[in-house]
Amino acid sequence: MYAIGVNLDLTNIIAGVVDESGTILSKESIPTLRYRPVSEIMSDLAVLVKRVAFAAGVDFDTEIDHVGIGTYGTIDRRSGTLIYSSHFGFRDVPLLAEIKKHISIPVYIENDANCYALAESRWGSTKGYKNSVIVTLGTAISGGIMVNKEVYHGAFFGAGELGHHVIVMDGEKCDCGRCGCWAAYASSTALVRDARIAAIRHPESEMFRMVNGDLRLMSYRIPFEAAKKGDVYAAEIVHMFKRYVALGLINIVNILQPDAIAIGGKLRKIGHEFIDDVAALVYEKAFGQQENANTKVMLASMDYDAVIIGAAMLQAWKEE
Amino acid sequence: MYAIGVNLDLTNIIAGVVDESGTILSKESIPTLRYRPVSEIMSDLAVLVKRVAFAAGVDFDTEIDHVGIGTYGTIDRRSGTLIYSSHFGFRDVPLLAEIKKHISIPVYIENDANCYALAESRWGSTKGYKNSVIVTLGTAISGGIMVNKEVYHGAFFGAGELGHHVIVMDGEKCDCGRCGCWAAYASSTALVRDARIAAIRHPESEMFRMVNGDLRLMSYRIPFEAAKKGDVYAAEIVHMFKRYVALGLINIVNILQPDAIAIGGKLRKIGHEFIDDVAALVYEKAFGQQENANTKVMLASMDYDAVIIGAAMLQAWKEE
Repeated sequence: MYAIGVNLDLTNIIAGVVDESGTILSKESIPTLRYRPVSEIMSDLAVLVKRVAFAAGVDFDTEIDHVGIGTYGTIDRRSGTLIYSSHFGFRDVPLLAEIKKHISIPVYIENDANCYALAESRWGSTKGYKNSVIVTLGTAISGGIMVNKEVYHGAFFGAGELGHHVIVMDGEKCDCGRCGCWAAYASSTALVRDARIAAIRHPESEMFRMVNGDLRLMSYRIPFEAAKKGDVYAAEIVHMFKRYVALGLINIVNILQPDAIAIGGKLRKIGHEFIDDVAALVYEKAFGQQENANTKVMLASMDYDAVIIGAAMLQAWKEE
Repeated sequence: MYAIGVNLDLTNIIAGVVDESGTILSKESIPTLRYRPVSEIMSDLAVLVKRVAFAAGVDFDTEIDHVGIGTYGTIDRRSGTLIYSSHFGFRDVPLLAEIKKHISIPVYIENDANCYALAESRWGSTKGYKNSVIVTLGTAISGGIMVNKEVYHGAFFGAGELGHHVIVMDGEKCDCGRCGCWAAYASSTALVRDARIAAIRHPESEMFRMVNGDLRLMSYRIPFEAAKKGDVYAAEIVHMFKRYVALGLINIVNILQPDAIAIGGKLRKIGHEFIDDVAALVYEKAFGQQENANTKVMLASMDYDAVIIGAAMLQAWKEE
């Protein structure tokens, strides 16, 4: 048997047929067009999962055990309701009920970062660790917490909102409406903001030159590349960015002390050197560090395909 | 059968005979005199537990099942080693081996805040909740995290160092050596510091008058009392203190979303009005709050006796 995992994100709906070893056999995507009614999005999603099964040469009705969907926001795993999503702007949307109008096999819905954590814990960087955390660093910051190798959901399925813990009281405005959140410092959005500000202040900088003065072209890669070329302003941006990322990780260590934290998401592409520097800061600064007994900080093994793979691993909700 | 619970803190060693309903039958204490060798402290502790059994009219050898010790720092529950304690200044001290020189019945050792959380979870404010957190607000801030009604220890017994998660990057110096920790803002030590600074700046304040200009006499109660008398500077201190306490709690909710957080420790004595104001801030500001589905913020039921009661509840370590 196979399962289909779906990553329903803000831009695209990506579905994959996943086998029992966590391998994606076939993958298809369509744009989310998220400002449409949820019923339309779910109707399209239902067509997509059937199409991807066909593309993989798998019979949807007889060879697909279930469909799992990972999406952005707080998901009630029992009822398949999207309780709250700041980016979708949804509250109490019955996703499962909508999709069940189109699909008769079982469908399970879970927060996307929890799917990511599940996939990494089973087949990726955090495999074998009892307690682990996945942090997805991208335009936002999400997190999935594994306790005893199970997703930890918290009281109302809202645990793991790591990006919205505050590291600078009354600091930078966050898109959640509060101030000083980790995501307002350590997301790619924050990095781009800081790089733009530095480029405005220092038109002599390599960063400014690299975007030809058009700040719309600034990306999270530019400060890293400019720093390598010797741009002192970019070096400072990168230095502070590493400190911001590390600080949130230190807080997670001091509160939860998992066996391992893996960094996934878009910023994972910056690579090992970046994570090694961040890890060194965590090892140095976290509370009560001991030799050979520190939370490991590492790159996640997978990119956002982990959401598809984790979603495909979802099972019927059992009361925790 | 009974058990003896011991709170080995920086100032006193307090032992109590505890029955199976969590009631302390008899309690005795001696000063810790913490700069002595550990062997002397443990030798005195062994005498104390026998004395308190005698005082309760209980035969130590036949009616006491075990001794549990709650103490400050990171405790390896398997080996009974105090791995790290910033305040005791200890590293890798074999507490259990020392006490076993004097006591033949089983002895278990655990972090004091974890004992507090265990006692509250079994008989106190967080009874019945699956996932809960105890925060002890005192001269420092400690925490105990309960997941599935069990103490969550983290990878190396260092979870729950809630006081040392950072809320203001590069902020106030903390006694752990780092900067900006929650404890550097929301402990009684921090409150007294802020009240002293305000009293120095404003000798016309009620706070200054209440200590007769002798800032050594400043206590955590004074800004609360002065604010009630209409001191605007004290009101500002109290206002900010509530925000500091709330911010750390919000971070805990956004990361862990427990069913309930209870505030214990010395500052618990400030009472319900204080906690209600803090709780209102948490309910307002934590991420994705829903009606009737928020982490409850409440006063702990017990004072530091909870450490004694929780220590008495310790059992032989089973690999988690």
